[in-house]
Amino acid sequence: MFSNRKKIHIEWGDCDPAGIVYYPRYFAYFDNCTAALFAAANMPKHDLLKTHNIAGIPMVDTRARFLAPSRFGDYVEVESCVTTWRNSSFDVQHRLYRDGVLAVECEETRVWVARAPGNPEKIEARSVPDAVILKLGGTRSKSNS
Amino acid sequence: MFSNRKKIHIEWGDCDPAGIVYYPRYFAYFDNCTAALFAAANMPKHDLLKTHNIAGIPMVDTRARFLAPSRFGDYVEVESCVTTWRNSSFDVQHRLYRDGVLAVECEETRVWVARAPGNPEKIEARSVPDAVILKLGGTRSKSNS
Amino acid sequence: MFSNRKKIHIEWGDCDPAGIVYYPRYFAYFDNCTAALFAAANMPKHDLLKTHNIAGIPMVDTRARFLAPSRFGDYVEVESCVTTWRNSSFDVQHRLYRDGVLAVECEETRVWVARAPGNPEKIEARSVPDAVILKLGGTRSKSNS
Amino acid sequence: MFSNRKKIHIEWGDCDPAGIVYYPRYFAYFDNCTAALFAAANMPKHDLLKTHNIAGIPMVDTRARFLAPSRFGDYVEVESCVTTWRNSSFDVQHRLYRDGVLAVECEETRVWVARAPGNPEKIEARSVPDAVILKLGGTRSKSNS
Repeated sequence: MFSNRKKIHIEWGDCDPAGIVYYPRYFAYFDNCTAALFAAANMPKHDLLKTHNIAGIPMVDTRARFLAPSRFGDYVEVESCVTTWRNSSFDVQHRLYRDGVLAVECEETRVWVARAPGNPEKIEARSVPDAVILKLGGTRSKSNS
Repeated sequence: MFSNRKKIHIEWGDCDPAGIVYYPRYFAYFDNCTAALFAAANMPKHDLLKTHNIAGIPMVDTRARFLAPSRFGDYVEVESCVTTWRNSSFDVQHRLYRDGVLAVECEETRVWVARAPGNPEKIEARSVPDAVILKLGGTRSKSNS
Repeated sequence: MFSNRKKIHIEWGDCDPAGIVYYPRYFAYFDNCTAALFAAANMPKHDLLKTHNIAGIPMVDTRARFLAPSRFGDYVEVESCVTTWRNSSFDVQHRLYRDGVLAVECEETRVWVARAPGNPEKIEARSVPDAVILKLGGTRSKSNS
Repeated sequence: MFSNRKKIHIEWGDCDPAGIVYYPRYFAYFDNCTAALFAAANMPKHDLLKTHNIAGIPMVDTRARFLAPSRFGDYVEVESCVTTWRNSSFDVQHRLYRDGVLAVECEETRVWVARAPGNPEKIEARSVPDAVILKLGGTRSKSNS
């Protein structure tokens, strides 16, 4: 299973008046980690979009559990991998560690979408290309959607 | 059950290159909605923190399902309520509607925390005061933590 | 001179560990205020972009002076107006008040841009249409650019 | 003159529907760059605050000129230095380069502040310690404030 580790420096502006990371920022970190995972497999997001003519890989479902807070000045590390490939959607898992201890874990389900022909405002799901799955060391599961 | 509705205008800067809301922004919306829920029950967050001498009500677990995208210029409305009160934690539910259609739903579990005596860097869980639960029209469930 | 006032509630997540608004957030407020100024003149941004086939009104120069801090829970009000119209650029002024006292002032210069024909990745300056200037109660200055 | 260079990867979530960096994000980058400048001089912000018992180094005046846009996937580099030290305030300059070409330049004036004795909600200016100026290779100018 292909995975990637990304080091993140917690910045002052990522933290709230309690002095800890403002939790929506973790989701931005994780979004960056998914992009980094694809980049590590030689598919940086800006290339991915052009090569496959897609509008993005938007989130349809995500959940995070916050086990321990982090503070500005901390360095954390996030390990990310795709856990499931379906037809047009896939699941990514992130584990954020501080000093080797699991501090946040997150799962996300994303969809492979393109702009609808004739209506650039509308986006619609498409099959994830086999080549993409292969580069990330995965195989498609039998389940649908 | 006490609930609150908050109207939100989707701003240009809340949206990503796909032209739709960048999903971490939804979590900021929902955090604001939880604050608005408490404010609607006459407990604006800055008062709440002082009155009860707490450091905040940080997130321990949150999940969102994105059913339909929104775009800058859209007006959406979020209905929020506390669904469960436990000893030191509670669950909040948010439902975001666009044109009357459910577009995002989110659940969150938060903890009532104070700074540890003798160590202002450490935060620790405390019992949610009965008065707070009462103002939000709730009753504490039997389950723990 | 056409102007608009926008009320803003300072949110917990807009503030930093010092407990005051994280200053980059003010620029997001001001960007929203410029959008609100156009909307108040019956040109909401999403309409503006479609009607005039432009990619946006990106910032080329902005400056803000922070005279007094604001905190989460504060309500502030921002008065905004266009101070100068040139050929393809214009200046906007924002004054943010808290309890009637000027707390932040900001000037910005923006450009009216469209996607370059044949290269959607490139954006280029265009003349601001007279109709737009008229709706905002302005007149074009003699100076260039 | 002590300076620091910081490499930044432009993320998807830093960009707006025009596909370019949402300009308030540049100010967050620059805030991080000022923190990185102090860290490079062996004064990481979280240490700086504790060692000198200050609440932060809030912004009082900042201006940025945006000469060329950047897009997600771009790598940019920011060169930062303190240009002037006064009694309780100082100026920082940032120059952001993409492919060696100046794309954004920014100046900022910050104040060295501590919490007021007896009123932790109030912050007040203090003299920047000589040791701090020395570590950043500077000398105090004769002018006041």
